[in-house]
Amino acid sequence: MTHPVNGLNEVVHQRTRLGILTIAQEARSVDFGFLQSTLELTAGNLSHNLGVLEDAGLVRIRKGYEGKRPRTRVEITAAGRQALRAEIAYLKQLIAHVDGADG
Amino acid sequence: MTHPVNGLNEVVHQRTRLGILTIAQEARSVDFGFLQSTLELTAGNLSHNLGVLEDAGLVRIRKGYEGKRPRTRVEITAAGRQALRAEIAYLKQLIAHVDGADG
Repeated sequence: MTHPVNGLNEVVHQRTRLGILTIAQEARSVDFGFLQSTLELTAGNLSHNLGVLEDAGLVRIRKGYEGKRPRTRVEITAAGRQALRAEIAYLKQLIAHVDGADG
Repeated sequence: MTHPVNGLNEVVHQRTRLGILTIAQEARSVDFGFLQSTLELTAGNLSHNLGVLEDAGLVRIRKGYEGKRPRTRVEITAAGRQALRAEIAYLKQLIAHVDGADG
């Protein structure tokens, strides 16, 4: 059997993107500002990583207005949920390795 | 409470380095070639990531000979074990979030 880290997808595994997907799957949609403060990111860093996830089809980004203020909302896609589920399954295998060896 | 991904350390979390540490903690020392084949890496990529871990004090690299053949062996340090343990603890929190939301 191949080592569990070989199954990890860098698009999903990268720390910031893993955080975005984890938060996005907990709600129908999440606000850009909420992601930024929860994950302690600059707007530029968050935008970059949202772009990577959007290009991979894992999130949808909706730009709109709330009154006069621009508002960006993020939704996880079905593919995003599936990719996150796969990541979590590989992480569980990895943890079993470590916990097994650590005794 | 801060989001669990904010606790993840990129030096340890990055896919290849997480694999190296996971394998290294299962034995007193591991062979470069074994890491390379298990993690499906080029020698250059493995060397680069071992260098990052060595610079952070998480592994020790011992170069020697077995007969006439050069042999590189990798050992996890006490700091490496601790860093891996912290990573696993944050991953468990993250998984609890996802499994909780996923129902």
